[in-house]
Amino acid sequence: MNRAELVKIIREKKSVLCVGLDTDLNKIPKHLLEEEDPAFAFNKAIIDATRDVAVAYKINTAFYEAQGLKGWISMEKTLNYIPKNIFTIADAKRGDIGNTSEQYARTFFYTYPYDSVTVAPYMGADSVQPFLQFEDKWAIVLGLTSNAGSADFQLQDCSNEKLYEKVLRTVASWGTPENIMFVIGATRKEQLQHVRSLLPEHFFLIPGVGAQGGDVATVCDNALNKDGGVLINVSRGIIYAGSGTDFAEKAAVAAKEYQQQMAAYL
Amino acid sequence: MNRAELVKIIREKKSVLCVGLDTDLNKIPKHLLEEEDPAFAFNKAIIDATRDVAVAYKINTAFYEAQGLKGWISMEKTLNYIPKNIFTIADAKRGDIGNTSEQYARTFFYTYPYDSVTVAPYMGADSVQPFLQFEDKWAIVLGLTSNAGSADFQLQDCSNEKLYEKVLRTVASWGTPENIMFVIGATRKEQLQHVRSLLPEHFFLIPGVGAQGGDVATVCDNALNKDGGVLINVSRGIIYAGSGTDFAEKAAVAAKEYQQQMAAYL
Repeated sequence: MNRAELVKIIREKKSVLCVGLDTDLNKIPKHLLEEEDPAFAFNKAIIDATRDVAVAYKINTAFYEAQGLKGWISMEKTLNYIPKNIFTIADAKRGDIGNTSEQYARTFFYTYPYDSVTVAPYMGADSVQPFLQFEDKWAIVLGLTSNAGSADFQLQDCSNEKLYEKVLRTVASWGTPENIMFVIGATRKEQLQHVRSLLPEHFFLIPGVGAQGGDVATVCDNALNKDGGVLINVSRGIIYAGSGTDFAEKAAVAAKEYQQQMAAYL
Repeated sequence: MNRAELVKIIREKKSVLCVGLDTDLNKIPKHLLEEEDPAFAFNKAIIDATRDVAVAYKINTAFYEAQGLKGWISMEKTLNYIPKNIFTIADAKRGDIGNTSEQYARTFFYTYPYDSVTVAPYMGADSVQPFLQFEDKWAIVLGLTSNAGSADFQLQDCSNEKLYEKVLRTVASWGTPENIMFVIGATRKEQLQHVRSLLPEHFFLIPGVGAQGGDVATVCDNALNKDGGVLINVSRGIIYAGSGTDFAEKAAVAAKEYQQQMAAYL
């Protein structure tokens, strides 16, 4: 999916909601465990319940990889089930030397035809560039994350700037706002304003809303741009909104509430 | 595998050779493509040809993931075929927020029972610590890599040291030389001496020998410690030493040559 198409669905749906499918077999409603493919049964119901208000789905590959082959089968069925006019993200945090990153790009753009994949920047240009060679595909590179560990390296001073600022500035120069987004796990007003001032055009994938403490209003007040320019991810706050047989209805209500908060800004 | 066991096999075999199974279906001998599982057929022959001199095998997961389910099947068969007294590395470069890193640790220590997995440090402590909770399992954290892109961030000044030095020092404090190793893609004498002086006890996984330009003598002269303390990985220089029906014999010869160079130091 290219940028114009993404912006179009944001405007049509008045939403920047990304639903995170961090599907954990220990957390899904117990009655689904009797299904042949519990993870897919859960995801299918969540997608049906949220597709009208979601502009993106983010599949956290770790939760599927941990199940071995059957996890990859659930993941592929989920990816295929997502409507083609919704943006898809493989949240896989890959990145390696060039010939290996080429294999990861092949994995998540071809073998599994996602629109985008999250990428870790530590190994530098030749680890990111292989992800930028595919038309209408995106690398979503880690900039500033929302976890406690972000202070260990990302927030350290690095030649007159923070490491994450150097990463944003440097990685942005390797591609364009048409093929690079950044993970910005900021939840504070000042951080969001600052990052937006550094990169006025780029899309940001913003986790950390809901279970991780951020809120939609602060993100929208401080990080939107003329195209929307953000994808706000909510995982646990939607997919585990309910834990009984009405989990999908509860997810629909939660997703709709998030979308309505966003609509006021779009 | 714990440290004492690893040191024992290094001493017995007089070897610190790690054979990298970056098995690319476009590069393996053509006659193997007729096999039911060409990647496994290739790996099985390489393992048989090198098991007497290798102390570790490193499986580059990207090359298997790119093949989808059949790649994961080849990978699992390969892992199961590696003798239990040889150290195994999932070269997967994972790392994410805590609850997600837990899933990756489960993937590579339990679903696929490797001894170790390579980990990217950008997201900090809570992204690495889940890999340190398993007895006799190891996180091999990216320190300094050998690719051109290492200059982009790893070699940048960061509060009076290089970023990779801060990573080594900080990550080392999260565990012990019994459960953390580092990827050190150094090929120059000064770098190797410097990194060894920073971390006298830790094991280093050293890629970059062979196709990437490094040599065994420089590594052994400058980075060995009393326990060996290095695993020198060679991938293309061994597994693609030949391209015909005698590829395994060629691999055996190449591996033996590397081991004999190492034996002079051990």
